[in-house]
Formats: sequence, structure tokens, C-alpha cells
Amino acid sequence: MANSVFGAIEAGGTKFVCAIGMSSGSIINSIRIPTRVPAETMADVIAFFQNCGRPISAFGIGSFGPIDLKPASSTYGFITSTPKESWRNFDLAGTIQRAFNVPVALDTDVNAAILAESQWGAAQKLETALYITVGTGIGGGAIVAGKPLHGLVHPEMGHIRIPHDFARDPFPGLCPYHGDCLEGLASGPAIKARWGIAASELPADHVAFELEADYLAFACVNWICTLSPQRLIFGGGVMQPHIFPLLRERTRSLLNDYVNAPEITERIDHYIVPPALGNQAGVLGGLAMAMSAIEKADY
Amino acid sequence: MANSVFGAIEAGGTKFVCAIGMSSGSIINSIRIPTRVPAETMADVIAFFQNCGRPISAFGIGSFGPIDLKPASSTYGFITSTPKESWRNFDLAGTIQRAFNVPVALDTDVNAAILAESQWGAAQKLETALYITVGTGIGGGAIVAGKPLHGLVHPEMGHIRIPHDFARDPFPGLCPYHGDCLEGLASGPAIKARWGIAASELPADHVAFELEADYLAFACVNWICTLSPQRLIFGGGVMQPHIFPLLRERTRSLLNDYVNAPEITERIDHYIVPPALGNQAGVLGGLAMAMSAIEKADY
Repeated sequence: MANSVFGAIEAGGTKFVCAIGMSSGSIINSIRIPTRVPAETMADVIAFFQNCGRPISAFGIGSFGPIDLKPASSTYGFITSTPKESWRNFDLAGTIQRAFNVPVALDTDVNAAILAESQWGAAQKLETALYITVGTGIGGGAIVAGKPLHGLVHPEMGHIRIPHDFARDPFPGLCPYHGDCLEGLASGPAIKARWGIAASELPADHVAFELEADYLAFACVNWICTLSPQRLIFGGGVMQPHIFPLLRERTRSLLNDYVNAPEITERIDHYIVPPALGNQAGVLGGLAMAMSAIEKADY
Repeated sequence: MANSVFGAIEAGGTKFVCAIGMSSGSIINSIRIPTRVPAETMADVIAFFQNCGRPISAFGIGSFGPIDLKPASSTYGFITSTPKESWRNFDLAGTIQRAFNVPVALDTDVNAAILAESQWGAAQKLETALYITVGTGIGGGAIVAGKPLHGLVHPEMGHIRIPHDFARDPFPGLCPYHGDCLEGLASGPAIKARWGIAASELPADHVAFELEADYLAFACVNWICTLSPQRLIFGGGVMQPHIFPLLRERTRSLLNDYVNAPEITERIDHYIVPPALGNQAGVLGGLAMAMSAIEKADY
């Protein structure tokens, strides 16, 4: 299929990024569409691909969640219990499939991101790696033995529980489900609620970043001890460059050489890293998924 | 290989269980050998298999750790940084391989256990499942997409960090590396150090078990949010039957219906379960590994 082009969609709570791409990983054309109610948003998404001048052979969608990824389920491809009411129980994959009648692959936005990083970015040639986003929420995607991790549903890595020293940080956490889970303590909105200022506005030497690094380091320990990844990639608006040195140092200190791997004990600068694909990881993941959807459909 | 018999070894800190088994999962003969220094212990292990009257076509070993599982490493198959000094840097897989000159597969004791449970026990037909042992230490093994999870090294699930309310439980934890990590707070020795009595001697309604269930429930939340397993199997000496109802209730309550799967919200009695193979899981895992080692060697 030398002339194939693929449709990639990064479906987010504030915007949809849509792109036309080639199997080389190059993007021909892309657009940002603000997320409104599904009917309006999807009309714009479909119009973009219909008017791009080339037939799309498959789509890949990395979406906000939770989403139903069980192929046998009657609501496969639906966004499920999201707090965004108008999107609840919306058939995201089916809407695209019916509009174009080509294969459509769907996964979480963070699984799309780790897939793109494993194909073209910071997780190339790795078998097991994590992509974590720290922004409006905290989410994590993983490849294990080279494949996206699913399981019972999909991981919800932002909702792990970590130590919370109330004497140091009396902020109770703002997760509506769990209070002071990781997302409740360390997401962008938690930083803003605790300090009154957004992370992007705080000076780099503000104590907020030490606390943030400490919380994320507890999370790194838990993900490392549970999944044993070969690399952790951190993206999202909160992950400013000055957090990385704090996060690496604190993670290494908490692990205390127990996980005896030189990647951690000697080369942690290359173990906890920003995305190589920057904010393109999500949409490029959609592209990787579309390519794999057409391969499956070719059988 | 209709006449093949396999050698299975569960290598533990206090005993080695050795067994001769068939590909059906049936054990013909087995022995328990107390763990002493490597030379004495391994001499007994080798003698048992040499004197069993049948040629062994492959071995599978589930071992205490940490162990080096990187095939490319010069110390592949070695026990590495264990606190048991005489076993440190001991070539466990190589010792068996040189004695019998047949394929030898090695994995962690907990990966062996989940492999056996997935073949013959409580994780049959599941793609993603966990086996956790709570005893002298706390360890976890996983299958993901049907295969044992490795990664950078192997998981060290007992060393995750969880909330610790010092007002309720002033016990500082006894992990020599991390203090109050999960193992430091909830292993058998932690219970004994905190209450002065071993878990097996405490009455079933002792408050110790509520605290234990709370710590293990935090850990369940973290493993569920990170790996999304289809089932969690809990074995080990601390996991007495009366802990299970407390652990299930507390896990469900902490997750608060956020992970929206009926396996958790409606059928948690079948989601957090004891091993179907009881204390045979480890040695049967060795058998499953031996079978797979001979298949690989047949290529």
C-alpha cells in the first residue's frame, strides 16, 4: 500500500489533534479542534479528514478516558465514565468507523504516546517502558514485551496511593474519588490549589517543585517495583525541565540501591527522561496504531 | 518425548522443594531439602535427581532473589544481592546445567507460582494476573499477555511505598533498605515485631489483621492501577482465610468504583483469591518452566 495515508487522532479533554500521516512517521497535515460537545467536535474532525484530498486507509485514536477497550464488549470503543458529561457513553471509535468504513484502532492517550515513543522516540528498542503525563490529570501508559499493556481494563496509574505527610503538606488532595491519591496530590490543579499559582507561573526554585518531585518519586518507586520498566518517560505541562533532576535524585535515594541495575544506580539521567517526541507523542501514537490496524485488517 | 520427565525446583531461603514431574502437571516424586550453604544444599538437590531412576530432560527453577535473568549477562542465572551471604553471587542455574547438561529455565519464585496458577490453577485462561506471597517477605509475580513479566530486572512488588499513618501505627517498619515500604510494614516479621506474636498465633479477630488488610489493600490499589490484572492471587503464611474478606472489602472501598469493572465492583470474591494450587504453586511453576525450556531447546 505505497500510497496509503493514515488518520491519527489525539482525543483530549480540551482539544482534538487530527493528523494525516505516512508510515515513515511523517505528518503531512494536521489541525487542532477545540473539544466541545461530541456532535460539534466530531463533525469538525470528520470534515478535516474528508477534505484532506486523499483517501484514509486506517485510523488510530489515542483518547482520554476511561474507554472500553474490550473487543467483545457491546460498548467497545466508547468513552465510558468520564466526568465530561456530554462525552459519557459516546461511541468514539464507531463514529469514525461509520464515517469512513476503514479499520479504526483505539487506545488510551498514554498508551498511544508510549507506542509512538517506542517506535520513533525515547523508548526505541525497549521491551518494557512507561509514559507518564502530569498535567490536568496524571496518567500512565506502558508497553510490556513490546506491546501496549491492557489487562482487566486499562491502567489508571495516576490513582495509586503514596505516602502523604500531612505535617509537611496539609493539602488534603483533590481527587473526587480518592482525595490524596497521586493525581489528587500532584496534578496541575493540585499544585494550583495548594499554592494559589499554576506550576507554569511558579519560580523554578519554589518549594512546590521539591514536594512535587517527592510525590512523583514515590510513584516512580511503585511503578519500578511493579513493572520493572527499562525507561520512564515523563510528559505533560507540569513536567518542566527543572523537575527532572529533583525527581531522579529522589527516586534513586528512595530505592536506596535495592533495585540493583546500573540504569538506575549509575545512569538515572537516561532512565527518567522527557519525551523525545515532545507534544507530538500522542498524535504519532495514533499514526502507529493506524498502521498496525491496517496490517491486522490485511490478514 | 513421551517418556520425558522434568525436574522442578522451588529454591527458597529456608528449604528447596525438588520434584520429578510429567507434562500433565502430575508430580511423581518430591523431596524437601533444608537450605544450608550452597555446596551442601546443591549436593543434596543433585543427588535427588541423579538417584530418581529416570533421565531428566529439562529443569525449571523458581528461586528466591534477587536473581540475574538477563540472558546476555555474564552472571545470568546467578542469585545476586541477597542478604543470605553464602548464596550471594551463586550460579544457581549453571550448577544444575553443568550437573545434568540439559536445558534449565530460571525465574523468580513468584513468577513460577503465577505461571503454575495460569497453567493449572486460579489464573487459567487469564492474560494478565498477579501472584503475591505474604510471608517472611512480600513478593509478587505477574503474567502479562500470558507471559511472565520481566523488564529491567524483575518486579520487587513488596517494596512499593504506601500511606503509613504513624498515629495509628507507630511501628517504623523493618525493611533494611526502605523502612516502612509494604514489606517493612506488612510482612510476617513486621507483624511479629509490632505485636510480639506471630500472625499464625494471633486470634482471628485481633486488630492486627485489620491493619494488615489495610496495608495490603493500598498495595492492591497500586498494583491494580498500574497493571490492571484480571485476578490477584494471594499466598504465603500470613494470608490466613480470615484476611481475605477484610482485604476485599477494603480494596473495593479504596478504589471507590473508579476502576469500573464488574470483576471488582460486583465480584471481588473471585477477584482477590487464594492460590488454587496451595503451596504447590512454586514447584509446579518449575515444572511448567521445564516444559517450556524443552520446547525452546527442540527448535
